[in-house]
Amino acid sequence: MAEHNFSVENTLVLLLDEKKYHSLRDILTTMNPVDIAAVFDELEENRLPLLFRLLPKDLAADTFVEMEPEAQELLLRGFSDSELKEVIDELYVDDAVDIVEEMPANVVSRILAQADPEMRKQINEILRYPEDSAGSLMTTEYVALRPNMTVEEAILRIRRTGIDKETIYTCYVTKDHKLIGLVSVKDLLLCEDDDARIDSIMEENVITVGTLDDQEQVAQMFSKYNFLALPVVDTENRMVGIITFDDAMDVMEDETTEDMEKMAAMLPSEHPYMKSTPTEIWKNRIPWLLLLMVSATLTGLVITKFESALGVLPILTAFIPMLMDTGGNSGSQACVSIIRGISLNEIEFSDLLTVIWKEIRVAVLCGAVLAVACFGKVMLIDHLLLHNKSVTTWVALVVCFSMAVTVCLAKVVGSTLPLLAKKLGFDPAVMASPLITTIVDFLSLLVYFTFATSILHIG
Amino acid sequence: MAEHNFSVENTLVLLLDEKKYHSLRDILTTMNPVDIAAVFDELEENRLPLLFRLLPKDLAADTFVEMEPEAQELLLRGFSDSELKEVIDELYVDDAVDIVEEMPANVVSRILAQADPEMRKQINEILRYPEDSAGSLMTTEYVALRPNMTVEEAILRIRRTGIDKETIYTCYVTKDHKLIGLVSVKDLLLCEDDDARIDSIMEENVITVGTLDDQEQVAQMFSKYNFLALPVVDTENRMVGIITFDDAMDVMEDETTEDMEKMAAMLPSEHPYMKSTPTEIWKNRIPWLLLLMVSATLTGLVITKFESALGVLPILTAFIPMLMDTGGNSGSQACVSIIRGISLNEIEFSDLLTVIWKEIRVAVLCGAVLAVACFGKVMLIDHLLLHNKSVTTWVALVVCFSMAVTVCLAKVVGSTLPLLAKKLGFDPAVMASPLITTIVDFLSLLVYFTFATSILHIG
Repeated sequence: MAEHNFSVENTLVLLLDEKKYHSLRDILTTMNPVDIAAVFDELEENRLPLLFRLLPKDLAADTFVEMEPEAQELLLRGFSDSELKEVIDELYVDDAVDIVEEMPANVVSRILAQADPEMRKQINEILRYPEDSAGSLMTTEYVALRPNMTVEEAILRIRRTGIDKETIYTCYVTKDHKLIGLVSVKDLLLCEDDDARIDSIMEENVITVGTLDDQEQVAQMFSKYNFLALPVVDTENRMVGIITFDDAMDVMEDETTEDMEKMAAMLPSEHPYMKSTPTEIWKNRIPWLLLLMVSATLTGLVITKFESALGVLPILTAFIPMLMDTGGNSGSQACVSIIRGISLNEIEFSDLLTVIWKEIRVAVLCGAVLAVACFGKVMLIDHLLLHNKSVTTWVALVVCFSMAVTVCLAKVVGSTLPLLAKKLGFDPAVMASPLITTIVDFLSLLVYFTFATSILHIG
Repeated sequence: MAEHNFSVENTLVLLLDEKKYHSLRDILTTMNPVDIAAVFDELEENRLPLLFRLLPKDLAADTFVEMEPEAQELLLRGFSDSELKEVIDELYVDDAVDIVEEMPANVVSRILAQADPEMRKQINEILRYPEDSAGSLMTTEYVALRPNMTVEEAILRIRRTGIDKETIYTCYVTKDHKLIGLVSVKDLLLCEDDDARIDSIMEENVITVGTLDDQEQVAQMFSKYNFLALPVVDTENRMVGIITFDDAMDVMEDETTEDMEKMAAMLPSEHPYMKSTPTEIWKNRIPWLLLLMVSATLTGLVITKFESALGVLPILTAFIPMLMDTGGNSGSQACVSIIRGISLNEIEFSDLLTVIWKEIRVAVLCGAVLAVACFGKVMLIDHLLLHNKSVTTWVALVVCFSMAVTVCLAKVVGSTLPLLAKKLGFDPAVMASPLITTIVDFLSLLVYFTFATSILHIG
């Protein structure tokens, strides 16, 4: 994809340097705004405004929306007032809000000054909703119909007003500003009676979201119900806007990235990786690294406590990494399964006992196989191949037993912790995943040394 | 959500036992098919067919599609031939294919026997495409228009044939079966001239996918371009079907789950967690556990090699978990950032040097902070608080130096490995993530003991 874009970029730059504006315009108008934006984002500062001005008005606005904030700011600063107004007039309100949120104050005040009064009012309204709320995602441009309209009147209304609406395919029926139903354009077009009243064909049981609902929940509703758009209502069921599926898809992607970052012990990043500075990345990574480093002291304490046993049989140290790693991996597996199940609404706290019972059975299976494999490995490689005389059958047995018990503990901790975190109102991905390894390390060494000292009679 | 469903379930069961079929039907028709299906999935076997038969025909088909395969099979086995035909006639082809793929052979042959010949042909066609290909995701029910139609004729055609189409909002213009353009219903409705020819208003530069394209790539195109539907063409640009955004959203969700599972050293699961048996879960988890357990032998070898040093200064063992964990965490952070960047098409192999240089700077920042914190921690807790006399300033320095170097190595390995895996044609999530910890463990202990033996003059 990118290689393709790069070659288009070169062609465009060449044509620009040769001042072949006609051909340039011809090429650009055949391209999708998303692809044009990708090329424009890579252009040098002095070429961007020139090329952008070649775009026809509607393509210009569509492309502008898809560009990176840095390129948008560059263009906005170079625009004359009338150019600025032209672009803003073509924007949907939710896109305008996204841009305003990224721009510095002086650019924002120029944008608001050029927006027409109605749009300015709507932008300011949406800006008042908290970040990550349904209200901040929505647009106020939707098709509203009255219940007493006929199908024919409704279609006429759509044809007259639809040009400014983000979607025309789902229309909302309101009475005294309250949402009382919806009809799709499909319903309208396929209705055989043009004189049928809207309230006789509308769907009355409308699924809505509240202005303050969390965006993650909104995205989940889209993937559950496969809606094109969801209406946003205030506490009194008054219709205030709609959220469209494309915005929900963006939220899904962001939330996935956030979940993965949290599971890997990072704070959620503000910008994509390639756009982040090393200092920004460092700030997101260092807190958990510090915390987990300090908490590893606990595991160190276990070792210190059994130092005399290690003095008698130093070979025991050699199996520490294997036990810790296998425990950590087993715990992460369970933990990630449960966290994903929670975010897909498949697993809830009430499933705790079912989950634990399932994990115990999985752990017994895994533990048994690992213990046998481990015994074989230790006897074959360490005892026979490497001729390590301190690796006796009893030592191998201690390692295997510890392995089996560690795996069971790891699976139970790994599956319980996310559900507990969720129950206590914490984010399972944050609270559970990074901690699992530390907790399991501690447990695995405790089990190992307890077995070692009591079975091998040392320490 | 689920609690709400459970109470609805109880109400429905009560009403069913009291034979209040009218009220039952009234309640069901106010519900969304997705929610009805969720309730039906939880019903006892003997109640399900009764309740299902209360649904009006179109709601019945929409609900059936959303149900779990187990409940679907139960219903299908109980259906009379005419009931079966009624449900199948209402299905879209892609949904019918999904059902056929999940059912045992005898149920499948009954379904195919009841489907009308045209549908049977289409089902069999889609079934021929490989799993996970665009062809297997598509439906063959789309609105096709001819280039010489007028806008008015096109709207008429949609109104006449739209009822059976999965989406009417994007219509495809074909000539000799080849795809030559598309128009949206919005374009048609908002076009001011009813006599305009379709080929004068259609969008000619259509973005398409091939029948054999991978479904992950298809899902990425939806999230990139925000399409409602994407046309699927064969190698000769003949239109064979469309994929709609709701199917793309499902793919996105599945691929995310798969990525997370792979990163946590699991094979991708076939079924959701709660529906999987312990044996199935075990099969997905044990291969990587075994492999990683055996590969931890390498780390054990490092310890064995430096056993004499540990004999002189056993306290060195106590810092092993902290070094291994911090290294592992640092590596995972880098690795997950890069893997996510790759799957969002943000990072490519050509960015390798940029990425390494960025990670080195992040690692220096992280390493410095961790080393200082580690020195403070060791001197404060281990030296002063726990009065551990073998923890000298020199030991603390060795631990800190090792920490800083380990973090740098971990970040470089963690960011390089996924890009290398991608370049070599492996899945970065599979090849890189589970291995990072093992590789970094090995490196961290090697660094630690090399420093310890040379600085502390032991071993």
